[in-house]
This record gives sequence, structure tokens and C-alpha cells, in this order.
Amino acid sequence: VPTAIGVDIGGTKVLAVGVDTDAPLAVLAEHRVPTPSGDATKILDAIASATRVVAGALAAAGRPAEVVGMGIPGLVDTSGRLRAAPNLLGLVGVEIPPRLEALIDLPTVVDNDANCALWAEVIVGAGAGARDAVLVTLGTGIGGALVNGGVLRHGRHGFAGEPGHMVVDPSGPECPCGRSGCWERFASGSGLAMLARRAVEAGRSPAILELVGGDVAAVDGEHVVAAARAADPGALAVVDEFAWWLALGIANLVNALDPELVLVGGGLADESDLFLARTREEVGRMALGASARTGTRIEAATLGSRAGAIGAALVAATPRGVGPGVP
Amino acid sequence: VPTAIGVDIGGTKVLAVGVDTDAPLAVLAEHRVPTPSGDATKILDAIASATRVVAGALAAAGRPAEVVGMGIPGLVDTSGRLRAAPNLLGLVGVEIPPRLEALIDLPTVVDNDANCALWAEVIVGAGAGARDAVLVTLGTGIGGALVNGGVLRHGRHGFAGEPGHMVVDPSGPECPCGRSGCWERFASGSGLAMLARRAVEAGRSPAILELVGGDVAAVDGEHVVAAARAADPGALAVVDEFAWWLALGIANLVNALDPELVLVGGGLADESDLFLARTREEVGRMALGASARTGTRIEAATLGSRAGAIGAALVAATPRGVGPGVP
Repeated sequence: VPTAIGVDIGGTKVLAVGVDTDAPLAVLAEHRVPTPSGDATKILDAIASATRVVAGALAAAGRPAEVVGMGIPGLVDTSGRLRAAPNLLGLVGVEIPPRLEALIDLPTVVDNDANCALWAEVIVGAGAGARDAVLVTLGTGIGGALVNGGVLRHGRHGFAGEPGHMVVDPSGPECPCGRSGCWERFASGSGLAMLARRAVEAGRSPAILELVGGDVAAVDGEHVVAAARAADPGALAVVDEFAWWLALGIANLVNALDPELVLVGGGLADESDLFLARTREEVGRMALGASARTGTRIEAATLGSRAGAIGAALVAATPRGVGPGVP
Repeated sequence: VPTAIGVDIGGTKVLAVGVDTDAPLAVLAEHRVPTPSGDATKILDAIASATRVVAGALAAAGRPAEVVGMGIPGLVDTSGRLRAAPNLLGLVGVEIPPRLEALIDLPTVVDNDANCALWAEVIVGAGAGARDAVLVTLGTGIGGALVNGGVLRHGRHGFAGEPGHMVVDPSGPECPCGRSGCWERFASGSGLAMLARRAVEAGRSPAILELVGGDVAAVDGEHVVAAARAADPGALAVVDEFAWWLALGIANLVNALDPELVLVGGGLADESDLFLARTREEVGRMALGASARTGTRIEAATLGSRAGAIGAALVAATPRGVGPGVP
């Protein structure tokens, strides 16, 4: 399939891109609409409208799209039905491909958004050529995806790659998932904010407290980043603590999977210069037989906010994520 | 390869079996020797001696062995060098295949013991036909192995499948690996003993205390099992706590990998009637989107103490664990 449309559906916006799947980084067309609140019909209409704009642009350029891929932040089963999605409740339970195909008249493939992002990174990004890779996306929570033996892995139901809800401290903070101490309580954007609030409450970061005008509850990850970039020692200590928690979960994944590459993506990847070196160092201490693991790389993802949309197009062009040349 | 020898090397004994790889459960010959303490030469001599006995028996039966497979409790790298093995320190650093081949004159393949056991279970045991399976072996520690897409997965260095050192409680007990709160501190044989000692110290299981004649330090997993089988409420509560910790780690693996099958093997698998139903129930509560995971089975391994040796023969017959019919 030469030309494909990729759509990344988030809690706040829908991004559609049109790409030449042989050269996907040169995005041919792009359109963004807000994600409506409300029921499935409204959300699907918004997705269809963004997709139609891109389809029209591609057709006008003489490069009509042949397939549509879609990345969704949630558990997508093997039939394309969304089974869980805390930020897209209106779509939960909906078998998306037939509904979309009725609206846009193009074959549609749906996958988890982090799966799409990893597939893009493995084909044309930071993971180019990697056969055993793990992506962890650091946003409000932690998403994830696995490539193993060169193939994007979906598992039995399509749900593989959800390390964010790995429990790493059963006496830790409650998680909306119903358990306590999930990894994403510590090593995501909201985890960074939680660690910062604890530090501020303990009087360990007056600089952050000042940024929020004394309102501890208002502390979020951006305040930590700003204070750390201003070299505030308290904020830097919070970032180190965050790096340690990130390392703890990555070391757990390294022990389980022994990947050649762990990619750190999501919004916080833009700040990875603040924490990734420390995380690497800690994983080097934590992983079993670390001195023999000379081939494990931990890197920031490089495709940024369009990784999911570009990857969705590539997933649609290579169904179930079986890449070119991979048996 | 029709006839192969499989060797399972443990901290206390070496078990060699000769099998028809088309019908591996009908073991054709078997021999056991103690694992000597001491250096690599002594250990390799013991392995060679057990292997020669089985090779002789197979030759006498007109079924000469063509390859030898070996399962080792430790991190085995892709060249067959043992990189870490707490119970076989004498062999650490040794590239085993050439050393063995010099002694027994048969091509030799070395892999992690749990990898071998899972491969046997997937070919002829509880996992027959499973394409996405995880094994956790509950012994002194927790070993593990992964089959994904029908292929035994080794990862970048050969170390894939070590969930025992997944940290699940950073403020938990220290682990010999140098970290704290590894899963195997709670959900292995020694974890069961630790949970029991805590219960006894808190006065929650007088029956276990009686079994050890008042010596709390002497409590081990077998006392818990004996007291639980005698329906002691304190021991049953310890077993339930153990089942919960086992479920916590399994749910973490289910979230990460979405396997169709989780097999519980190792010595404690013989007692799985005591805890596995409870573990299943807890995983059903803990795994993300549990109600949509209708295809996840959690079962006891069935090949028992010969799984590792039989599996080693099968791994040698199917190099790097690529099964028949799997691309």
C-alpha cells in the first residue's frame, strides 16, 4: 500500500495525516480537530471529518489513500473493538472499523496508540531496524508496546504492552484502575507531579512552591520541569526520584523481555535530557546480570507528537504489524 | 533430529534423559548424578558422565543420540556462556558447548532451564499448542520463560524471561540480587517461608510454630503446606497471602504480555491445588480490562521434575526454540 491515512485519537484532539508509506516522514497532508465529548456517534463523526479532509487533500494531489489506520489510547481487541479507554469513554464497547468504514468508505484498521507509535519508531524512528524493542510512553499515564522478533506483538486479546499498570508498590497511591502503586502512579507526568507535591509538602522545594503561588495542589509536571531547568536543587532531586522510578519499571521490563532497545516516548520524552541519563545508570544497577547486558539501549523516541498518527498509517499498510521482510 | 539427550542441571543434581523427540514423554533412558561443588571442570565432568550413561543406553537400544540439550538455572547468553547462576557459581563465565562437546563428542545446545521447561510444556505438556505463553517456576526463587508467536523468546542477550527479579515492593525484603522487594522474595518457596515466619512471629499460626518445635527461623514452605493441608486457619491465611503475591506478579505479566496461557511450574506447582484457584481469582480482579480477557488461562505445569530435561532435548532438536510449523 503506497498511500495511507493515519489517525491518532487522543482525549483532546484527533490528528489525521496522509503518508507515503515508503517515505512516511514526509507527511503529505495533515488535519486536526478537537475530540468531542459525548457518545460514539459524535466522536466517530469527528474522526471521519478529519479523515475526509486528509483523504481529499491526497486525492487532489493524485495520491488517493487506500487504507486508514487508527491509534486509540485504550485496550483495542483483535476485532477492533475498544474494550477500555479512560479518556474516550464514549467509544468503549464500539467495534470501530465497520462504523468508520460506513462513514469514510476506506478499509480501516484500529490499534492501540502506543503500538502505532512504536511501529513508526521501529520503521523510521529511533528504533529503526530493532527486532526486540519496548516503548513506554510517559504522558498522564504510561502506555506501552512491544516488538519482538521484528513483529508488533498484540497478545491473546490485542492488549499486550500495558506496563503502566504493573504494580511496583502495593502500599503506594491508589490508581484509577482500582489497584494501588501502579508504575504510572510514579513514573508518568502525573507521577512526576505527585513526587513534586510530596517534596513541596516536606519543604524540599521552595522554588516549585513559589511557581504555584503557594498552592501545593496546583503543582504539575511542568512546574517541576521549569524549576529543574532553573537548576533548583529541590526540583532536580524530584527529577532524580522520578528517574529512579522510571528505571525501576524499565529494569522490570528488561528482566522480563531482554529487549535490545527501550524507547521512552510520550510528552515527557521532550524533557528526557533532564532524566534519561540517570535512568540509564539506575537500570544498569538494577537489571539482573547488568554487566553482561552490553546490548541494551535506552533512548528517547524521536518522532514526537506525530508518531502515533504516522504509525497508525504504517500499521494499516502492514496489517497486524508484521513488517516488511519479517516472516 | 529423532533422538536427543536432555540434561537438567540443578544446584544439587544433574538429570539426563534420552528421548525420541517425536514422542518425548516416553523417556528412553534416564540417569542422575549429584552436582559436585567446585570448579567448572568438576561440574562438567559430572554432566558428561550422566550424559555418557544415557548415550550408552540409547546406543545399546539402537537409537543413538544426535544432539545434547542442556538446561541451566541461570543467565545463558546466546553463545552458550553462563553469565550468572547463584547456585552454580563454578560454571559462571564458562562457554559451555565447546567444553562439553570436547568431553562427549555430540553437538551441544545450552539454554536457561525454565526456557527448556516451557518449551517442553508447549510441545507436549500443559501448554500444548499455545502460541503466547509465560512460564513462572516457583522454587527457591522464581524462574521464567516466554513463548511468543509460537517461538521461545531469548531477547537480545539470551536473558529474556526473568520475572523473579521484577521489583514489586521497593521497601520490601532485601534480595540477594542487590535490590529490595523482588517478586521472588514473596511468591517463591522462600517467599512462602518468609510470609509464614511473619505470621508465626505475629502469633497468627500456632500450628506452624508447633511443627518447628518453636523455632521460628526453621519455618519453611513445607511446614506451611503441611499445616494448610491439616486445615490450620493460620497456615491457610499464609497460603492466601502467598496466592495474592503470586497473582500480583502474574497480573503484571498479563498486563505487559497478554498471554493466552500462564503456566505455574517448579516444585511448588505440586501444591497448586492449595493456591492456584485463589491466584486466578485475584488476577481476574487485578489485570487491566480483566472482564475482556476471556482467553487468559492460568494453569499448573504438568511435566513435573522432568520438564527441564525433556525440554532441553527438544530445544536441542529445534535450535533456538523455533517450533515445527512456526515461521
